[in-house]
Amino acid sequence: MLSLPTRLLCQQTRNLQGKQNILSAAVNSLHQKATANITMEKFGLPKRLQGSKPSVWNEYIALAMQYKPLNLGQGFPDELPPSYVTDALADIAKSDNPMLQQYTRGYGHVRLVQALSKLYSKLVDREINPLSEILITSGAYEALYSSIMGHIDVGDEVIIIEPFFDCYEPMVKMAGGVPRFIALKPNKSNGTITSADWVLDDAELEQLFNNKTKMIILNTPHNPIGKVFHREELERIAALCRKWNVLCLSDEVYEWMVYDDAKHIRICTLPGMWERTITIGSAGKTFSVTGWKIGWAYGPANLITNLQMVHQNSVYTCPTPIQEAVARGFELELERLNSPDCYFNSLPQELKVKRDFMAKFLNDAGLKPTIPEGGYFMLADWSKLGNKIDLSSEGDQYQDYKFTKWMTKNMGLQGIPPSAFYGEDHKNLGESFVRYCFIKKQENLEKAAELLKKWKS
Amino acid sequence: MLSLPTRLLCQQTRNLQGKQNILSAAVNSLHQKATANITMEKFGLPKRLQGSKPSVWNEYIALAMQYKPLNLGQGFPDELPPSYVTDALADIAKSDNPMLQQYTRGYGHVRLVQALSKLYSKLVDREINPLSEILITSGAYEALYSSIMGHIDVGDEVIIIEPFFDCYEPMVKMAGGVPRFIALKPNKSNGTITSADWVLDDAELEQLFNNKTKMIILNTPHNPIGKVFHREELERIAALCRKWNVLCLSDEVYEWMVYDDAKHIRICTLPGMWERTITIGSAGKTFSVTGWKIGWAYGPANLITNLQMVHQNSVYTCPTPIQEAVARGFELELERLNSPDCYFNSLPQELKVKRDFMAKFLNDAGLKPTIPEGGYFMLADWSKLGNKIDLSSEGDQYQDYKFTKWMTKNMGLQGIPPSAFYGEDHKNLGESFVRYCFIKKQENLEKAAELLKKWKS
Repeated sequence: MLSLPTRLLCQQTRNLQGKQNILSAAVNSLHQKATANITMEKFGLPKRLQGSKPSVWNEYIALAMQYKPLNLGQGFPDELPPSYVTDALADIAKSDNPMLQQYTRGYGHVRLVQALSKLYSKLVDREINPLSEILITSGAYEALYSSIMGHIDVGDEVIIIEPFFDCYEPMVKMAGGVPRFIALKPNKSNGTITSADWVLDDAELEQLFNNKTKMIILNTPHNPIGKVFHREELERIAALCRKWNVLCLSDEVYEWMVYDDAKHIRICTLPGMWERTITIGSAGKTFSVTGWKIGWAYGPANLITNLQMVHQNSVYTCPTPIQEAVARGFELELERLNSPDCYFNSLPQELKVKRDFMAKFLNDAGLKPTIPEGGYFMLADWSKLGNKIDLSSEGDQYQDYKFTKWMTKNMGLQGIPPSAFYGEDHKNLGESFVRYCFIKKQENLEKAAELLKKWKS
Repeated sequence: MLSLPTRLLCQQTRNLQGKQNILSAAVNSLHQKATANITMEKFGLPKRLQGSKPSVWNEYIALAMQYKPLNLGQGFPDELPPSYVTDALADIAKSDNPMLQQYTRGYGHVRLVQALSKLYSKLVDREINPLSEILITSGAYEALYSSIMGHIDVGDEVIIIEPFFDCYEPMVKMAGGVPRFIALKPNKSNGTITSADWVLDDAELEQLFNNKTKMIILNTPHNPIGKVFHREELERIAALCRKWNVLCLSDEVYEWMVYDDAKHIRICTLPGMWERTITIGSAGKTFSVTGWKIGWAYGPANLITNLQMVHQNSVYTCPTPIQEAVARGFELELERLNSPDCYFNSLPQELKVKRDFMAKFLNDAGLKPTIPEGGYFMLADWSKLGNKIDLSSEGDQYQDYKFTKWMTKNMGLQGIPPSAFYGEDHKNLGESFVRYCFIKKQENLEKAAELLKKWKS
C-alpha cells in the first residue's frame, strides 16, 4: 500500500470522501425529512378544524381566474353600486376629521348602530337598543360565526336546512356542535316550479328537535333556492323553537330582494320569538357592495352579549370609514323608505326583470329553473341536458361539479355546484342542479343567453 | 246573602277579581322570570368563553366618552394619515371598476399580497410566496386570532410574556390552550430606565418549556414597554423553540417604529426559525390608519394553511377597497424604501421627538418613565405621587385602575392601567404603572404637560 502512487492514493481518498459526502447528504436529508414530519405533525390542524378544506369558492374562483368564463357563479353585482355610498366613502377618505381613519367602538360605530336601530325598530315594531342589541361584524359572515361560536357548545345540536350557505356546516363543527340536516324538496316535478314549491316535511322537522337542540339556522330569502318562507312555514318553525326552547339564527341578508307578491317576514316578530332569535343582515347585499364586508346581528341583549365576546376575541372592531359610509347610506334611505326611489325598493324592481330574463333563457336552453321569490340566485335543473354532453373528462365525485367545470371549460359559462350546499349524506339531492346569479349587467345576461343557445343549434 | 244589594255584590266581585288579577299577574311574572332564567341559562356562554368579560378598552372608551379627558390611552394617532393612502381610498371609492367594491380573493387581495411578498422577501431575505405564505386578516387582531385558533388545541401550553397585549390571554383560553406567563422585569431601579432594562429571567423562561408547549407569543417592538428585543435575547428564545419544537407567534405590528440605535430583528430570520415562526404585521400601525383594520400573517405555507382555515370559517375575506388602497401605499413606499422620505423612515423620526417630549414632562411631574426603544407607548411609574392623591373614591381592585380613573375624572388626562396586561397572578407587577400613548399631536402632548404641571404647583 505504501508503494501506491500518491496520485492514486489521493484519488481513492477523494472517492471515499465523495461517497461519504453522498452518504452524509442522504443521512441529512433523511434527518431533515424526519424533523420536518415531526414538525408538521405537531403543527397540524387542531381537532376542532380537522377535516377542514378550502371551500368551493376557492376552487371556483381559481377556475374562473384560469378559464376566464362569463362568471354567473359567485354572488355579487357586476355594476357600480349606488353612487351615494361610494361618494360617501370618498368623502370620508378625504375628510379632515382624523378620527374617521382610526379605531371606532368595538361593538359597532355609533352612527351606524344608531341608523340600524332606527331602521329595525320600525321594521320589527320594537325599540332596539343600538348599544346592547346590535353588533357590527366583518360581513354577515362574521355575524354567523360569532352567533355560532358564541352559542354552540361541544355536543349541542344545530338544525341546518339544506341546501345551505356552505359556511354553516364548518362553523358549527368548529364550535364542536353537531349539524342535523333537513332538506327542502320540491313537492312537484311538472310545470313551472317556483321556490315556494320547495318545502320542508313537517314530521321530519319535528323529529329533529330534542333536548340537545340548541339552534336552528333559517335563511330567508333563501340562498340558493330563492325561497321566501311564508308565514305558516315560519309559524311551524317558531312553534318548535318555543316548545324546545331553541335559538333561531335567522340569516336575512337578502331581506330587501323579494319579488311579486312575496313578503319578507322577520321570524323575530312572531310571538315568543324575539327572545330566542338572532337576526343577521348585510351592508354588502343591501347596498350592492359585497367587498365592503360590513354585516350585523340584532336581537335581545342577553343573546347578543355572547356574540360580543367572540367578536371581541377575534376581530375586535370593524373598519371605521366603511361603517361611517354605510351609516350615511342608511340615513339617506331612512328618509325615503316608502318611496319607489328608495334603493331597497328600486333594486328588487330591477332584479325582477333580470330574474325573468334569466328564467326564460335557461328554460329555452333546457335548463329548468326554479323561479325564485327572493334573493339573486336561481337554481336550474340541467339533468335533461345530460345526454348532450360527455362529462367523462371531469374527475369530480359529484355530477354537478362535473357539469359546472365542463361548462366553464367548454362553454365559457360558470355556475356553482349546489351539492356544496348539502351535508355529506344528501349531496345527491343537489347533483342535478346548478346555481346561477342574476344580479349581473343586462349585457352579461345576454351573453349567457347566447352561449346557451348553442345547445339548441 | 241574597239580600245583599246588587251594588255591594258587584263591589265584592270586583274586589275578588282585582285580587285574582294581582295574584295571576304575580304568578305570570314568576312564571316569566322562571322561563327567562331557563332561557338565559340555556343561552349562556359556551365553556370556551366562560369567564369572558368586556375588555379594558370597552370600559376606558366608555369612560372617555363620559368624562371627555385628553385621551392618551388608546393607541392611535390623532393626526391625519399620509394623504397618499387616503387619496388612494377616495380614488378607489370613485373608480369606474365595479370589482373594487365587490368580494376579492378570500386569503388576500392579489395586489396586496404581491406587494407584501415584495416587501418581506427583501426584509427576511427569502422568497415569500404571495398566495400560500401570506394571509390578509381583519387587522393584526384577526391574524393573532387565526394563528392561535389555527394552532392551539385543547391542553396545549402557550408561553405569554407579561405585560402583553390584552387579547392574547382570552384568545388562548378560547382555543382551550393553557397560558403560561413570564414577566419582563426591570433589572435596575435607579437612574434612567429604558425598555432595554426590562428583561426575562433566562432560567425562568427555560423552565416554562416542556413537551406540552406549543407556542410562545413574542411581541417586538413591545407594547406597552417599548422593548425592542436584542439579537441575543431573540437567540435565546429561538434556541428554546428549536429544542422543544415550539411555534413562535411574533407580533411585529410596530416593526417600523424603532428609535436611536435599536434595530428591529425579525425572529423568523434566525437559523431554524422560518419553519416555526408566524409573523404578524398591521396596515393600521404601518400607515397610521388603525381604523382600516387590515393586517397580515406570513410564514411557511404549512403553518399559514391552518390560519386560512380559521379565516375561511370566521371572516372569509377582507374589504376590497381598503386592501387595494393599502396595496397602493406599499407600492409607493417600495420605490423609496431607503429614502428618508419613505414614511417607514420619516414616521419614527417624528415619533422620537414626541417620545422625548413626553419622557421629559412625565419625569418633571414625578411620573418616572421607561424610555421606549420602539413602539408608541410609554410606561410611567406613578407610585411616588401616591401620597399626593386620595384614590379612596375609586372602587377598583387594582391601584393602577384607581389611579387612571382618578386621573381621568380629576385631572382630565387618560392613560391605560397596565395590570390589564398581566395574568391574574401577576397583576400586582403592573399596579404602580400607567401606559400613555405618544403618537399624538404636539398640541395635545403640550396640553398633557400642562395638566401634569399642576402637581408641581
